[in-house]
This record gives sequence, structure tokens and C-alpha cells, in this order.
Amino acid sequence: MNAWIRKSVRMLTPYTPGEQPKRPDRVIKLNTNENPYPPSPQVARAWREFDPRLLRLYPDPLCGRIRARIARLHRCDPAQVFVGNGGDEILMLCSRAFAEDGGSVGYFDPSYSLYPVLADIRGLKKKPVELGPDYDWRMPSGYRASVFFLTTPNAPTGIQYPRAVVEAFCRTFPGVVVLDEAYVDFARDNYMDLALCRDNALVLRSLSKSYSLAGLRVGYAVGPRPLIGALFKIKDSYNLDRLSQALALAALSDVAHMRRNTRKIVATRERLARTLLDMGCAVYPSDSNFLWVRPAGISAATLFRRLRERRIMIRYFAGRRTGRCVRITVGTDAETDAMIQAWKGLTA
Amino acid sequence: MNAWIRKSVRMLTPYTPGEQPKRPDRVIKLNTNENPYPPSPQVARAWREFDPRLLRLYPDPLCGRIRARIARLHRCDPAQVFVGNGGDEILMLCSRAFAEDGGSVGYFDPSYSLYPVLADIRGLKKKPVELGPDYDWRMPSGYRASVFFLTTPNAPTGIQYPRAVVEAFCRTFPGVVVLDEAYVDFARDNYMDLALCRDNALVLRSLSKSYSLAGLRVGYAVGPRPLIGALFKIKDSYNLDRLSQALALAALSDVAHMRRNTRKIVATRERLARTLLDMGCAVYPSDSNFLWVRPAGISAATLFRRLRERRIMIRYFAGRRTGRCVRITVGTDAETDAMIQAWKGLTA
Repeated sequence: MNAWIRKSVRMLTPYTPGEQPKRPDRVIKLNTNENPYPPSPQVARAWREFDPRLLRLYPDPLCGRIRARIARLHRCDPAQVFVGNGGDEILMLCSRAFAEDGGSVGYFDPSYSLYPVLADIRGLKKKPVELGPDYDWRMPSGYRASVFFLTTPNAPTGIQYPRAVVEAFCRTFPGVVVLDEAYVDFARDNYMDLALCRDNALVLRSLSKSYSLAGLRVGYAVGPRPLIGALFKIKDSYNLDRLSQALALAALSDVAHMRRNTRKIVATRERLARTLLDMGCAVYPSDSNFLWVRPAGISAATLFRRLRERRIMIRYFAGRRTGRCVRITVGTDAETDAMIQAWKGLTA
Repeated sequence: MNAWIRKSVRMLTPYTPGEQPKRPDRVIKLNTNENPYPPSPQVARAWREFDPRLLRLYPDPLCGRIRARIARLHRCDPAQVFVGNGGDEILMLCSRAFAEDGGSVGYFDPSYSLYPVLADIRGLKKKPVELGPDYDWRMPSGYRASVFFLTTPNAPTGIQYPRAVVEAFCRTFPGVVVLDEAYVDFARDNYMDLALCRDNALVLRSLSKSYSLAGLRVGYAVGPRPLIGALFKIKDSYNLDRLSQALALAALSDVAHMRRNTRKIVATRERLARTLLDMGCAVYPSDSNFLWVRPAGISAATLFRRLRERRIMIRYFAGRRTGRCVRITVGTDAETDAMIQAWKGLTA
């Protein structure tokens, strides 16, 4: 016990990121939803053209060029766009901007396990909403919170909620809805239009998954000017470094490359889903770059552990709602085949 | 008025960073304390050797290699080292980790104007301490706060406080002391030893100034394990991207380059100080890479404005304690000479 440290921080159980091995080239890494394909050649080109001597100068604090590019992509005004040091920075800023002390944070259970941590750091009330038996949408009538983090497609289940329920929720929820669309480029639909027409909804996007840039830490939010303006007021002045700005701009200028990669991943995902169904697993319908799977003939925890012994990393979340399943990132076809072969070896 | 936005954020006057021109090559830029010399050739080398395809993978969330390097530099344990997305991220995390709701933030006036903003964001009490007439140390007896941000050498004055008073303050202050040593590599002394022997003191360092890496956004904190551990608990998981980690490690492996550059800047600073004294200005003793100067025969505001018309940028802070002075970053000898020549043209 250290009295200098704020009580909510002393008591905090911090977020645990997925394992990042020191030598990723020695494993088949299907545990943290990274893209198996490299980023756009435009990123490598921007890299070569960058002059590292420029690093002596501060970056643009407002990320003007990237925001202009994103505004064009989504047909909105740059004042409706915020760019952050990864989507996580934006989620953190939302937890600080949209709830008073004594306020509350809403989110589905299960969903991204960072949300309750963000509530705990500020000492806000947590108001989790338990999903249905198949992780489908359930919302108690009259439900209220200061801010609701709505991951769609959801993690770790991969399920995208139907447009009608999301739209109705944004209309009736009394607080701010943060539509966390980190995985949306692998989905059939997206809800950007809600952020562009409603006063209380933001959409969060990430370059980590679909743009193959998890290592760069760039995410963005789009939404109504006042909410976006609030994020700008409380962000660190220079939250995105010069390199990240240059390379993110290059990636966002080659959406075609991203689309080709996401199409390949979706094709592998569907093939993998059919294989797992043939093996007797329960496979939840995924609109993301991962599958949420209840294995047959082996427990989820054992499967996770024994694949790991064979240097194949997938993700296992202990707990009542998650402990019977594993989350498998969709890799290349070869990685997927190797994982299936090892799995079959365990259950044969 | 937007009821979705937290009141403290609605009311907030945000921090205003110094002007960052779109074409820095067209101005003499002496306004935001950047280093006029490029970073170590090791940074350019790490740059060339980096494989941008690796950006598809998440970075090391714990910055293990950089922390090991910093621990060797300061002869401490990596568990005593935190690395952040610029010093500003660390200051923000300190404001969140070391004060309860209803707590208070202390700092000198004038000092880094981010500190009161960090207090306002959280709705903490601000307890500024007015410096003496020559910006010298003044501390009321029995002064208390949850956390005190102590910039030494101070900004915008450049003055390093004497070791004895800083040491005594850390010993008697009941809260956490954050010794913000962003400019210390240009100073005669440093107080790292206080962070390594006391329970309630952290030292903050930055790669922005002395290592010529303002564009990269890397800072670090050194101090007692429990305080460092608290920062780790509340940081964003992947707060430092892969590139920043690789290039910061390269920079920290070439301290000799940094020392050569800081020696050059200190020599230019002393030459510039003598010139300004000869011109009748009041020049405060600087242990930093800038000078705090009260001009003679022209007001600070006019000097700032008229140099700017000539594409020479220095910094002016309006206000009772700061409005009679300007802050001039020490550039190259040529930049310094050009600035002096333009200045003389205004007062001739």
C-alpha cells in the first residue's frame, strides 16, 4: 500500500494485452488479430522518402493532412475527425471527456476487456450489459450510462449487430455512443453514417487490423464537431509522431491495397469456418478477421495450451462467458492449414 | 453548451503549443526549443535497417529494450523506468495516478503551462507557487499538494534551482514530486539521484531536445518502483510504436553524439547571452537550450511580432509575469547571428 498512489489505481486490475513473443518469426501468431499481409507498398515508399533528420522538429499537433484525407474518405469535414496514438488512446480520451465524476461506463459482456479498466481508472461506475446466449444483442429497457462503448463487429465474438438495433439504440440512449469499428473493414456493413448524422455517436476506426499497421499505433474517430472538439481539448499536444503521420497518410492513400487484403482474409476466414464446422466445432458468424470457436472433443483451455506448445498462438479468455471458446485470428492460408493440422493431431 | 461533454472539459482552456509552420525550411525557427542539429547517425542507420513490413505486428507493450538501455545509463533497474509517447504523456499519467478526486496539483508560476491544464482536465485544485522577482525559488512554509510538477531547469526561464533547495523540498513535501528535467542535458547539474534514493520523487526526461527527436515523441521517467508501476497500470497498452522504439533505442545508444550537440548549443547560448547583454537586454542565467530575455528599447510583444514578419520565430507569452520577456531557442550560430542582425535592425 502506497499512499501516494490514487486509490482507484492501487486497486486496479490493469488490462492484459495478448502475448507478444520476442521472436514472432518463430511462431504461428494467431492471437492478437494482426493482419498476416504487409501494409501497402505506399507505406514502404513513404518510409524510404522520409528524411530522418526532420525528426528534430515537432510534428503537426493537429494531424492536418491525415484528417483531410480521412474527411475525404468518409465525405465529412476535417473538424469531424480526430486522430490518435492507436484506437486505445481515443477510447481513453472518450472515458475522460464524456462522463462526469460519479458517472458510468456501459459496454457489453463479453466485449473488449479494456472498457471496464478505463472505468476503474477514473473510478466510474461500470454498467456491463450481458449479451444473449449466443452473444446476441440484449439491452434492458430504460438502460442508462454516461457513455457506451459498442464494439461492432464485437470482440472476441466477431458478431456484427444488426443495423436496426444499433440505430434504435443510438436514438434512445441518453449518453454518448462510441461505435468501436476496429474490425469493420472485414464486415458486410458499417455504421459510419450514424456518426455523421447523430449528435451523440462517434465511430472509432483503427489502422491496426485492415491496414496492417498494428505496429504504427494510429486510430481515428469520426463524429459530431462538439464531441470531436472535446477530444482535441484534452489530448496530449503532439500525440502522433512525424513518422506515424507520414506512414498513416500513405496507407490511407491506398485503400485499394487494404481492400484486396481484407478480401483475401475474408475468403480464408470462410474456408476456415467450414473446416471447423466439419470438425464438429461451434463457429460463431464472424464479420471480423478472427473466429470465435467452441472446440469439439477438447476443452478450449487445453487446445490453447497444447497449440502453444507447438508454437501456434491463439487466444483464450478464462471466464464464465468466454472460457469454453477460443479466438483464432485469420492468418494466411498456410498458417491456417498448419494450425488445423496441429489441432487435428491433438484430437485424433 | 453540450451536456454530453464533461463540465471540466467544456470549461477547459486547452494548452496551446507553440506555432509549427507548414514549411519550417522557410523560417528561422527559434520558438519551440527544438535542437538545430540532426539526431545521431545511429538513428538514420536504425531507420534504414528497419523493415516496414514488421509494422503489421504490435510493438512490445513494455518497451523492454529501451528500458534496459535507460536502466544502464542511470544505473538502476528496468522496473524503475517508464517510457512514454513524449514527456507529455507521462505528465498526463502522473496527473491521473498521484492525486485523488478532490486533490491538488502544484507547480511554479511561471513554468510549463501544461500543468494547470492537466489539473483542470481532472477538476483538481490548482496550487501555483509564485516565483521570486527574478524567477528564483520561493516556497511558502507548510505548502501541500497531491503532486508537484517541478521543472528544473525551469521553462520559460531556463533557471535550474539549487540542489540544496530541491533536495530539501523533496524531503519535506508530503506528496509526489515530479522533477521535469526535459532540459537537463544543457545544465551543469541534474537531480536523477533524488529519484533513485527517495520514495516520492520521479525524474522525467525527454528525447525531444538534447537528442534532437522532438518529432519522434519519446520521453521517460525514472523513480521508485511503486510510482513507476502505477504509471504502467494506467498507460495505453501499446503506447509506443515499433519505429519509435527502434529509433529511440538507437539514439540512446549514442549518448556521445548527444553530448557533442549539447556542448555546441551551450557554447552558442553563452555567446548569444553576451551579445544580448551588450545590447542592454536583461538575460537570465540559463541551464537550458533557450534564453529568457527582457529586450532593451523595444517591447517583448513588438520584438516577437516584428521578427515574425521577417520569418524569424521566437516565443512570446502574454501575462503579468512573462509579458516583458521573450524566450529564444538557441539555434545554430548562423541562425543566432541572423536573428541578432534582424533584431538590431529593429532597434537601430
